[in-house]
Amino acid sequence: MIAENFSSRLLESAVSEFARLPGIGRKTALRLVLHLLRQDKEAVGRFGETIVRLRNEIVNCRICHNISDTEVCAICSNASRNQSVICVVENIRDVMSVENTHQFNGLYHVLGGIISPVDGISPSSLEIDSLVKRVEAGGVAEVILALPTTMEGDTTNFYIYRKLKPFEITVTTLARGISVGDDLEYTDEVTLGRSLINRVDFERSMGR
Amino acid sequence: MIAENFSSRLLESAVSEFARLPGIGRKTALRLVLHLLRQDKEAVGRFGETIVRLRNEIVNCRICHNISDTEVCAICSNASRNQSVICVVENIRDVMSVENTHQFNGLYHVLGGIISPVDGISPSSLEIDSLVKRVEAGGVAEVILALPTTMEGDTTNFYIYRKLKPFEITVTTLARGISVGDDLEYTDEVTLGRSLINRVDFERSMGR
Repeated sequence: MIAENFSSRLLESAVSEFARLPGIGRKTALRLVLHLLRQDKEAVGRFGETIVRLRNEIVNCRICHNISDTEVCAICSNASRNQSVICVVENIRDVMSVENTHQFNGLYHVLGGIISPVDGISPSSLEIDSLVKRVEAGGVAEVILALPTTMEGDTTNFYIYRKLKPFEITVTTLARGISVGDDLEYTDEVTLGRSLINRVDFERSMGR
Repeated sequence: MIAENFSSRLLESAVSEFARLPGIGRKTALRLVLHLLRQDKEAVGRFGETIVRLRNEIVNCRICHNISDTEVCAICSNASRNQSVICVVENIRDVMSVENTHQFNGLYHVLGGIISPVDGISPSSLEIDSLVKRVEAGGVAEVILALPTTMEGDTTNFYIYRKLKPFEITVTTLARGISVGDDLEYTDEVTLGRSLINRVDFERSMGR
C-alpha cells in the first residue's frame, strides 16, 4: 500500500514533513503520524514545540563550538574539568562518544568537519584558527587529535600539528590498534602493523 | 556508541521525544535531531508547527469517522460519489488502501477497530451503531464489508451482517482468493479452497 490518498491536508503535510527526515520514507512517515494522532494533545504539542525550540534556541559554544543551551557550554564552564587539555574532534557526535568513555576530563574543540578538498572543505571553513587562538591564549598543555582514521583525518591531523608546532605544547593522537575483543585473524594488516609499531609496555597497557 | 551525554538539555529532550515514536530508538532519534539542527530555522519551525496543528485540528468525520480537516470529510461531502454504497473498514489506513485501488466510488464507514474480546474490544466501543443508523436513515443500497480476513474480522462481519439483516439492502464482502501474481504452489490451502468455492465466470473475472 502506497498511501497517497489523504482525506486530510493536515495529515498530508505532516506525512510530507516526516518523510523529509533522513531514512524515513512515506510509509514510515504515515505510521508515525497516525501514531501521533492516537496520542493525547499535550504530548503531541510538547513534541512539536520541542522541535521548534530545538532549532531556535540551541547555539554553538563560543569556546569549543559544541552545541549548547548557553553561550558557553556545560563542559567549558565546568571548573572541575582539566582546562589544560583540549581534545579536538570532527563533530558534536564525537564529543558524545568520547564523553561516554568516561576516560577524559579535559575540554573539547569541535572542528565542524575535516579537511576534504573533494567535498570542498578547506581549513578556513573549519574551526582551526579558533583552536590556534585558544592555544595562543595560554594555559593549554596538551592537544589530543581525535579525528577519524581516514586519509582526510590524517591530513587534518597533520595540518593542525603544523599550526600548533610554534607553541610549547604536547600534541598527541588517539592510539590505533586492535579493537578490544577482536581476533588478530580478522584485523586488517595496516591496523595490525600500526599496533606492532606502537606496542606499549604490558603493565602500562593494563592501565597501571 | 550509545550517546547519552548531551551537552544540551534541549537536544536531550528532543531526542527523548523522537525516541518515543514507534520503531525509533535513541540512536536514530539522535540522528534525526542532528539532521534538524542542520536545517534552516523556517523549515524546522514549520515541521514543529505542523505536528502541533495535526493533533489539534484534525477531527473525525461526523458521518464516516474517517479523519478529516472539516466536520464532514471530503469523501462524504463529494456529491459525485455514489451515496448508496458504504464500504465498512477497520481504520483510516484501510480507507487509503481502498482509495488507492481507484475501484471504489462510494462512501466509507470507519469502525475504529474490530471486535476482539481478547483485546477488550466489544461491539459497543466500535462505530457499529452509527453504521446501523446510517442504513436506517435510508438511501443505502449496499454495504461492503472490507474487514481483515482474520477470525476477529469474520466475527465482526457476522455481527454487522446480523445487525443489518432487518434492512432491505445487499451486504457483500471482499472476494478472497489468490493474490494477483501468486503461484498456486505458494497459496495456502484455505485461500485456494475459498477461491475454488467462489470461482467466478471467466469473462466477468476479466472485468468485462
